[in-house]
Amino acid sequence: MRDSGATVLPGLAEIAEVGRDHVRGGYTRHLLDEAERTLRDWFVERATRLGLDVEVDRNGNTWAWWGAPGPDAFVTGSHLDSVPGGGAFDGPLGVVSALDAVARLQAEGHRPSRPTAIAVFAEEEGSRFGVACLGSRLLSGAISPERALALTDADGTSLEAVLASAGIDPSGVGPDPDRLSGIGTFVELHVEQGRGLVDLGAPVAMASSILGHGRWRFRFTGQGNHAGATLMTDRRDPMVAAAAVIAGVPALARQRGDARATVGRLRSVPGGTNVVASAVEFWLDARAGDDTVTQTLVAEIAAAARAAATANGCEVAVTEESWSARVDFPDGPRTAIDRVLVGAGGRPVPVLPTGAGHDAGVLSAHVPAAMLFVRNPTGVSHAPEEWSDADDCAAGVDALTRVMRELT
Amino acid sequence: MRDSGATVLPGLAEIAEVGRDHVRGGYTRHLLDEAERTLRDWFVERATRLGLDVEVDRNGNTWAWWGAPGPDAFVTGSHLDSVPGGGAFDGPLGVVSALDAVARLQAEGHRPSRPTAIAVFAEEEGSRFGVACLGSRLLSGAISPERALALTDADGTSLEAVLASAGIDPSGVGPDPDRLSGIGTFVELHVEQGRGLVDLGAPVAMASSILGHGRWRFRFTGQGNHAGATLMTDRRDPMVAAAAVIAGVPALARQRGDARATVGRLRSVPGGTNVVASAVEFWLDARAGDDTVTQTLVAEIAAAARAAATANGCEVAVTEESWSARVDFPDGPRTAIDRVLVGAGGRPVPVLPTGAGHDAGVLSAHVPAAMLFVRNPTGVSHAPEEWSDADDCAAGVDALTRVMRELT
Repeated sequence: MRDSGATVLPGLAEIAEVGRDHVRGGYTRHLLDEAERTLRDWFVERATRLGLDVEVDRNGNTWAWWGAPGPDAFVTGSHLDSVPGGGAFDGPLGVVSALDAVARLQAEGHRPSRPTAIAVFAEEEGSRFGVACLGSRLLSGAISPERALALTDADGTSLEAVLASAGIDPSGVGPDPDRLSGIGTFVELHVEQGRGLVDLGAPVAMASSILGHGRWRFRFTGQGNHAGATLMTDRRDPMVAAAAVIAGVPALARQRGDARATVGRLRSVPGGTNVVASAVEFWLDARAGDDTVTQTLVAEIAAAARAAATANGCEVAVTEESWSARVDFPDGPRTAIDRVLVGAGGRPVPVLPTGAGHDAGVLSAHVPAAMLFVRNPTGVSHAPEEWSDADDCAAGVDALTRVMRELT
Repeated sequence: MRDSGATVLPGLAEIAEVGRDHVRGGYTRHLLDEAERTLRDWFVERATRLGLDVEVDRNGNTWAWWGAPGPDAFVTGSHLDSVPGGGAFDGPLGVVSALDAVARLQAEGHRPSRPTAIAVFAEEEGSRFGVACLGSRLLSGAISPERALALTDADGTSLEAVLASAGIDPSGVGPDPDRLSGIGTFVELHVEQGRGLVDLGAPVAMASSILGHGRWRFRFTGQGNHAGATLMTDRRDPMVAAAAVIAGVPALARQRGDARATVGRLRSVPGGTNVVASAVEFWLDARAGDDTVTQTLVAEIAAAARAAATANGCEVAVTEESWSARVDFPDGPRTAIDRVLVGAGGRPVPVLPTGAGHDAGVLSAHVPAAMLFVRNPTGVSHAPEEWSDADDCAAGVDALTRVMRELT
């Protein structure tokens, strides 16, 4: 494997030890945990060193302004939180590339012609409170503050309590229409989560669309009991019911074209080796290009869950925890970016769909938004094997710098 | 439901709030956690109040001597730790009943004719370090001190570190042949884990045998990846492989007579909702009356695991974490107890097998051991629904008091 982007992007090297997960591998950086707070401080320090004015908005998102804030702003950025055991690039690559692009433009004497900012969105992965893109959803009103503040993490701590302990006033959380409408263009640079650019032999692409996606919680309840003293015929075991459903998910998804369905997280109660569980919860992540396909697939999996519950003397409840409709990024910003990059002598920029959700997708319902993807030779993401070569990271920063130079 | 044993056994009422698990329900009292240390202190205080001399042996088991220690001792007792979210009776009922029996005998002026002790064994459930009956296994040499000290809990802390922090010298851990050979008779009173006594209409039984039982860890490894960006056809998902195995366990167990096989604990790595897992571990608890049946069943489940791993592009490793051969309690102590109880005017004492492991089973390989079971109207154990009526708890203490009066 060639040199990582950290060799050309000093910011990635600076944060390379923050939040390393020595149990899972990779990084665990969850909203306002110790690692994510360290990254917030690091970002403030880096942005301040560039002369940017930093503010935290009412929803915990961080904004670093190059010049005065104002309407029709050009905003770029991404996020600094991770999934548990995630890779080094998902999120930080967009933030670090934005800082580097600003530094280069400053070095060449560029002065932006419009308000310009780097934004770092909070809880993009939803790894602590279960709802992805929470910061941009709150900003844009896609989730109510009441529902968001009541979300709890694995320890039962509410978002409200976590925000308050970080000095973010919970009573201020919620839609921020002035800030939202002030965004004239939003561009998010992100490591590609797939091998589209590998197949095309290109370092950088733009996003065409994001699959519709959601998260559903399946909770099976049965009768907890002794693993040795309870006859097989006397059991109401929710683990068996849950396992039967999970084992059948891939076959159901494969019948639905481009759909993907995943169970990556499961919790058994009480979770003892010598105990028949009393309850088992798992979370289903389902996505497809056509939103009705996703909904149909989830309905099929829910029906399978009810059948498995009945077969095992259990009950099951299915709860939708989040839903994001399919996003088609608009032509406008993409055409502008393509003109900039081709005009600079590059090849036409490939356009790729993605199955991964992003803050740019949430914002796209309200403001002109676009995404730049940087090649990932492994195609792997949300795992330690996620990768971006130094040359491709440099190409990403080059592209973002050109776009900022022309559009600001 | 009628009055609980706590109304007639003040000891149960005294500890009723210690280690309550408000998330799972029931009690979570794991080796040397805050709750279990509180219970240790409580036991020392209660035993000291009865004039007993308390010592902690080299393996963290607590002994309260009525009179001087010595050979051919009569020892009764059980344990104070629990499974996660366990019931109020499994373990404490035997300890509390022993304290009450001593108090009654003292009140009537009984003076034991042989060394007499109440023993509280450490980590009987194996809920913190994975090996059940750890205290009695170490005492009797059924597990090596090297292997035991290297066991780690869910946080990665070793038994060695936990013992040291509790003031128990790790270098002293291991077989204690003098102490073991000094036990002339061991009698453990325990709540029944099943409905045998309900069906018989009797409050108290003796144990005939314990099913052979063991614990096996199944670790599947695949490729962690993004839940949205990874096509179904590109996955190596260990959760799907593990689920396929778990779903098939009951059918395999039912083909093997009285065998039981349970998966109550599962851990996915990294455990993110939007992440295809890179690894999934589950623990299999398997038991049967015939040890070769248990071993055959586990071999079949391991073969199913290898097939599921292959079908999903994963690897699997199966590790035996503990094994306890079938125990048949000897006739001697049982005949003596039956004579005492029948001779006191009672009905002949029923004799029941059990699927649950106990310290009495471990000790039975070395010293004459017996068990008394107290009726459990729900039949449920290792769960909050575990129960023992006040009248039955009183009958249990009566029985243990008579046995101690005659045998000491």
